[in-house]
Amino acid sequence: MRRFKGYIFDLDGTIYLGDHAIPGAPETIAALRAGGARVAFLSNKPIEPASSYADKLSKLGIPATPADVLNSSIVMARYLARTAPDARVYLIGEEPLAEELRQRSITMTEVPREATHVVVSWDRQFTYKKLDDALQAIKGGARFIATHPDRTCPVPGGEVADVGGMIGAIEGVTGKKVELVTGKPSPITVMEALTMLDLSAEDCIMVGDRLETDMRMGREAGMATGLVLTGITGREQLESSPIRPDYVLGSVADLVDAADLVNLADPAK
Amino acid sequence: MRRFKGYIFDLDGTIYLGDHAIPGAPETIAALRAGGARVAFLSNKPIEPASSYADKLSKLGIPATPADVLNSSIVMARYLARTAPDARVYLIGEEPLAEELRQRSITMTEVPREATHVVVSWDRQFTYKKLDDALQAIKGGARFIATHPDRTCPVPGGEVADVGGMIGAIEGVTGKKVELVTGKPSPITVMEALTMLDLSAEDCIMVGDRLETDMRMGREAGMATGLVLTGITGREQLESSPIRPDYVLGSVADLVDAADLVNLADPAK
Repeated sequence: MRRFKGYIFDLDGTIYLGDHAIPGAPETIAALRAGGARVAFLSNKPIEPASSYADKLSKLGIPATPADVLNSSIVMARYLARTAPDARVYLIGEEPLAEELRQRSITMTEVPREATHVVVSWDRQFTYKKLDDALQAIKGGARFIATHPDRTCPVPGGEVADVGGMIGAIEGVTGKKVELVTGKPSPITVMEALTMLDLSAEDCIMVGDRLETDMRMGREAGMATGLVLTGITGREQLESSPIRPDYVLGSVADLVDAADLVNLADPAK
Repeated sequence: MRRFKGYIFDLDGTIYLGDHAIPGAPETIAALRAGGARVAFLSNKPIEPASSYADKLSKLGIPATPADVLNSSIVMARYLARTAPDARVYLIGEEPLAEELRQRSITMTEVPREATHVVVSWDRQFTYKKLDDALQAIKGGARFIATHPDRTCPVPGGEVADVGGMIGAIEGVTGKKVELVTGKPSPITVMEALTMLDLSAEDCIMVGDRLETDMRMGREAGMATGLVLTGITGREQLESSPIRPDYVLGSVADLVDAADLVNLADPAK
């Protein structure tokens, strides 16, 4: 397998499953870094700050800082700061997204008619009032954009309603489709990840467990793609899908040779 | 114009506009009744009980009782009582709908996994919790049905989010389309109206201001249709629509001859 300058990893299903690291993941990341590769971690989940992911990864044996992590809240805040720094945002979303917007000096408003953008994200405090405010803002000309497209989020024992509900509610009252989704598989997420790594697409591989988001996004961006079979996708779905990753990996551990892992385990050798 | 045994009237835009009767409406209804016709009033708005409509009509000079009024809450409750009397309903809706269900001894449950039906209506107390409960209920096999299809509801100075938001939210998280909508233009509403009047479709006319709901429903049910131009539809929309009502009326007052109105105004003649 070719060595890349940059490795962009999905998190849940790829690096860890719930609260457990995928066996071999810490050693693999360490080996890649030891070989000079740059590593970024990518999640569509907007309801926790980058520092939470960095802490979790570090606890699982993968040292990480918030600067190594990109989630859909960060991508949205960076996108707005780049393209619409004077935006006045009516936000349907939780505190970590609000905090990302504040950090980039994006103005938020509670007054629908003042809003230039309705930014929609996963919001467990979503109410009828927020829905009606979004309707009034969009009728007044505000853009309708969302952080990510996920219908549901996996949780132990099942799944819970995700941003798909908030997007669907607003589409349902406005009769308009969401104009832009910045999270995976949007190329906006790829651009932010490449900027973070300071590398170009052809030097990077996207590694993840989902064909429709991770693999599709990597392919469309011109990156190599590596599907891991530790998450949502099994060999059966892979065979029936039109999306063909460049590499199919039993797990993230297959990214490096066993020899590299041994050397790392005992740096004296 | 032909005389009918039964007249089914839409309310807002047809009989009244906001808090004012359409000029001539009280006299027209009185003349129709004096001539032996039966009259029913139909609304998709589920958030007020039939008694509110009856009171409002009576105050505007059109004597009415709750038995003359059919709204989308009543239609849903009757539909369930007829087709699924043992249903266990997880309700997204307001008190007037809950009361209609209770009156027909339909069981409601707060426990998503116990629900056989998720009944979705306009709910100004809609929250993320209700959305997630609906997801869990539908994943558990509950049917997903709604009282009416309206995206928004007109209010003085604009419009507010209606049931389209609740339906869209649930479609957005489940990936399933709502299975059944019982309100206008559903034939279920026609059946209930005809049952209420104890008449068959060919003896009735549907009178309303909306092509896509009132006129479409009347036509599909085999009733005559009369479009009034006092509401949302103007001559321009009428000309560009594929739906052709049997009669186009300046207002509901055109349903009866001037002579009838004069006789009524002075019964001694």
